[in-house]
Amino acid sequence: MRITKREEHMKATKARAARKRAQEILSKARIAITPKEAEGIDVADFGLGDLAHIGLELIVYENNSRYCAKELVLFPGQTCPEHRHPPLSNANPGKQETFRCRWGEFYLYIPGTPSGKPRGRIPRKYAPYFTVWNEIVLRPGDQYTLPPNTPHWFQGGKKGAVVSEFSSNSSDETDLFTDPHIQRVPAYE
Amino acid sequence: MRITKREEHMKATKARAARKRAQEILSKARIAITPKEAEGIDVADFGLGDLAHIGLELIVYENNSRYCAKELVLFPGQTCPEHRHPPLSNANPGKQETFRCRWGEFYLYIPGTPSGKPRGRIPRKYAPYFTVWNEIVLRPGDQYTLPPNTPHWFQGGKKGAVVSEFSSNSSDETDLFTDPHIQRVPAYE
Repeated sequence: MRITKREEHMKATKARAARKRAQEILSKARIAITPKEAEGIDVADFGLGDLAHIGLELIVYENNSRYCAKELVLFPGQTCPEHRHPPLSNANPGKQETFRCRWGEFYLYIPGTPSGKPRGRIPRKYAPYFTVWNEIVLRPGDQYTLPPNTPHWFQGGKKGAVVSEFSSNSSDETDLFTDPHIQRVPAYE
Repeated sequence: MRITKREEHMKATKARAARKRAQEILSKARIAITPKEAEGIDVADFGLGDLAHIGLELIVYENNSRYCAKELVLFPGQTCPEHRHPPLSNANPGKQETFRCRWGEFYLYIPGTPSGKPRGRIPRKYAPYFTVWNEIVLRPGDQYTLPPNTPHWFQGGKKGAVVSEFSSNSSDETDLFTDPHIQRVPAYE
């Protein structure tokens, strides 16, 4: 897909605004990051251009062949769309990850009995691509470990959320999304 | 070594006090933990019975075969003694770990040119067991990744420190300490 200069400029402006907002949330959560980390906050819109609804801001602290640690920031009601981390080799059953809520509220959805009254809201046009509705609510100090290859999605609560993600090696380009329109990589520059 | 009832009682009292102090530091650092985690804070005195100088308080958030995440708390001037994480098998070159300072100041010592004026202080009687003096100072937002099998020790700064440790699988019982008097496991109960 070709992108015009004007579109590029708009994307960069949106990314800067999202970085600033993510920094404000990290500051409220009293999470210290370096100026270089602040400049490099990854703003992921998953190729949908609808960051207010579908998106995620993150800082990768460390990602090596053995383990990975990230800080995730979600704006109020912002959603990381449904995906799974598939097996990658005989030795690698896929990424396993632990979400630990540091600030705000984090709604995580996994396979199982759907919640009767889920807190998460999804705009109608994306609804077909959200198939798991077993809700887990994480508040500060709560955490949940997700086995590899498990479909999941998550959303920030009313104030948004800051969540530490501890995991095995992370390779975003191998993630499988339910919505075929999604492109995880590249994110906003 | 046999421990009398009276000694056991004293150890339990000290562990409770250390847990309370660690909670106060976590609270200053705005790190949220659950009541269950607070009760279960691991107080490690490394068998030396001198927690004010040699010790570490920690919460293991997750430790599985692939990755591990902990929160470490150091009192002002408290030291985790020199040790390394040796290779454990052909497939496991030893624990690799990333220290990320969340609050306070953290003095990390690794092989290399000794610091001329190190911030860390070690009581004379322990000095022979501290052999690496290349100082790395971590302040909130700073981090350092240590390769496997690297001798290292660390100390909390004037206010103490809270440090997130991200790593490959952790097995305390395989750590090798420079001081032969040290017993990492079991910690205070």
